[in-house]
Amino acid sequence: MRVVQKFGGTSVGTLERIRKTADLVERSWRDKIETAAVVSAMSGETNRLIGMANELSDQPEPRELDALVATGEQVSAALLAIELKQRGVPAYSYTGMQAGFHTDSQHSRARIRHIEGTRLMQHLKKGEVPILTGFQGVDEHGNITTLGRGGSDTSAVALAIALEADQCDIYTDVDGVYTTDPRIVSSARKIERISYEEMLELASLGAKVLQTRSVELAMRYNMPIHLRSSFEDVPGTLVMEEVEDMERAAISGVAYNRDEAKITIMGIPDRPGIASSIFGSIAESGINVDVIVQNVSEQGATDMTFTVPKGDFPAAMEIVREVAGKLGARDVVGDSAIAKVSIVGVGMRSHTGVAKRMFDVLSKEGVNVQMIATSEIKITVVIEEKYLELAVRALHSGFDLDADG
Amino acid sequence: MRVVQKFGGTSVGTLERIRKTADLVERSWRDKIETAAVVSAMSGETNRLIGMANELSDQPEPRELDALVATGEQVSAALLAIELKQRGVPAYSYTGMQAGFHTDSQHSRARIRHIEGTRLMQHLKKGEVPILTGFQGVDEHGNITTLGRGGSDTSAVALAIALEADQCDIYTDVDGVYTTDPRIVSSARKIERISYEEMLELASLGAKVLQTRSVELAMRYNMPIHLRSSFEDVPGTLVMEEVEDMERAAISGVAYNRDEAKITIMGIPDRPGIASSIFGSIAESGINVDVIVQNVSEQGATDMTFTVPKGDFPAAMEIVREVAGKLGARDVVGDSAIAKVSIVGVGMRSHTGVAKRMFDVLSKEGVNVQMIATSEIKITVVIEEKYLELAVRALHSGFDLDADG
Repeated sequence: MRVVQKFGGTSVGTLERIRKTADLVERSWRDKIETAAVVSAMSGETNRLIGMANELSDQPEPRELDALVATGEQVSAALLAIELKQRGVPAYSYTGMQAGFHTDSQHSRARIRHIEGTRLMQHLKKGEVPILTGFQGVDEHGNITTLGRGGSDTSAVALAIALEADQCDIYTDVDGVYTTDPRIVSSARKIERISYEEMLELASLGAKVLQTRSVELAMRYNMPIHLRSSFEDVPGTLVMEEVEDMERAAISGVAYNRDEAKITIMGIPDRPGIASSIFGSIAESGINVDVIVQNVSEQGATDMTFTVPKGDFPAAMEIVREVAGKLGARDVVGDSAIAKVSIVGVGMRSHTGVAKRMFDVLSKEGVNVQMIATSEIKITVVIEEKYLELAVRALHSGFDLDADG
Repeated sequence: MRVVQKFGGTSVGTLERIRKTADLVERSWRDKIETAAVVSAMSGETNRLIGMANELSDQPEPRELDALVATGEQVSAALLAIELKQRGVPAYSYTGMQAGFHTDSQHSRARIRHIEGTRLMQHLKKGEVPILTGFQGVDEHGNITTLGRGGSDTSAVALAIALEADQCDIYTDVDGVYTTDPRIVSSARKIERISYEEMLELASLGAKVLQTRSVELAMRYNMPIHLRSSFEDVPGTLVMEEVEDMERAAISGVAYNRDEAKITIMGIPDRPGIASSIFGSIAESGINVDVIVQNVSEQGATDMTFTVPKGDFPAAMEIVREVAGKLGARDVVGDSAIAKVSIVGVGMRSHTGVAKRMFDVLSKEGVNVQMIATSEIKITVVIEEKYLELAVRALHSGFDLDADG
């Protein structure tokens, strides 16, 4: 058995937490499991370092910023190794550079190219525990790079793949993935197993438990991720290959997002290139457009509606008004009092009528659906924000996700 | 012209200080001087890191402790590079590992074996400024090492040698080497030029301006060190090869040390191996013995006196009492109310009667000399502690070191 354990910032945030984390690594090692650990910076440390850089410069040189923040994980890796060593666990810390986490040269958002596993593998074979810094690597010129925020998950999965581990355990401050937000639905249940695809959809919907890139990587190499709590010793959620399951429920979870706003352009002349003019201008300003719906054309004019992050709403409205004016559109209206609710599940593939059931549940509660977008394993609706909790609860119960009793 | 500039912990201790330090690097660069900088950790940072390690373990694993504290210089190098870059100075930070500061594997007190200058030299040739982390390197196995406290001076001198620089500028919080401690003698003068040998003697006497190892290294390769203030823009002291100088004064400076205590073993049987038994036992317990004097033997017995650091005095007394008992010595007496005063100068080689003049000056002030030790360019006396200031002032004036006017 070979495992990569990943510990986030809160799991190494204080010396006391480092001791608890050492308990987990030590237990795995004592159980004769070949164990490698990947650690983030102590929580708050990365922000402290970036804060200093920002005091010196509005736009700190990316190469130097990477060298600066990379010290954060080096500190926590060394401290964890010190704690383990004094317990008699043969631990050795490695920076991304030392361990051979080779990346491209895109500072602050580098991508891992390959990991030199030889030296680490020698440690594992000797019953030793390498402690790796997450989030960072080295480019072909020997420059220190970082993978961007959340990159430690990706480091851990990439390392698990390079070391041909059986599993990647990601310890975090939540104890797994839930059928929906327990703060909204008290009967939400922890999901025991979830497929990579579902996890990806949930992550893209704002479930911040795992970084999207790490799930994509795990899926490509079929590396199971055990997402679990570093505070409580309970099983978490296993993210793994989809398995055949006759009894599978139609959906696995209900997700939501209240951080978007809706913009509608009314009466745009319906000619080729219109969408490209509109979304091109928005993209240029760095704003991400999410759900897009275009109505059927009537008399040579059409309506187009899409959502943008709430924080970008004023800027987006300004851009759209200008473009719409040039295109001869009739009007532009915006609405930030909306919410997005999605149901996700690979079960949709085998169950028919999932969409109809969703609309039935919502209409029974008097919730009007403003926009609809679907993917193979997800249906998203945009509704009035005030109905958000009601809709989530109704869907959770309507798709039989409520916990027993 | 090519220069290595070294900045200690106080010179990079705050963001404000980093800006001032950047001023110095920038000026050198604008003056078309090929400039490389070596930085220490922000003052207090190394202690903060070691403090965390000590909270986890009484004896933190040296390999991991080195990886931990090496982050200190990485942070200050990156911050200085960020500050320089935003001023338009093409600066690039390098860790000891990146720059190729190859050392042996003695963690926490590694010695530099060689420095790969190629990449750094390319920067210099292109008019760019490499910023190096002092104090650290990498061993042949790719482990991070540190040179021990004060090692940044050594890093800077070694780098200056590797890059064939014309000079190594060491910026610190004092503005040079003085003829004696200005707190004791108000007419003490800054020494414009001093030889490596004299600097070594002064350093070994406790003048904490330059680390002994760095001066030894500079002497071996004849690399001039300009010791100067990072706070005030005034010339400092140039440490360099001894130059012929007809007008040279007999001595260059007066040094003192009040941190030693004296132990006398009386009536030891005078046989071979006695000294080795005594000093062997003391050395085993890690205590450094400084001045040693043995009286002429009388009737087969002798007296032996030596000094130890005041902090080690009680432990040393205990050891010596035990050994002396076994050896059949008559008595052991200790005295911690002593001080050591030295005069240093290569001028002693050409001037005769320097020792006599020293004793004359002291005796005229009624200062009794308890012990004497000499080297080629130094005479040290041990006196009663209460006469320290008097002796230093008398010698400073008696050897014509007082500033004019």
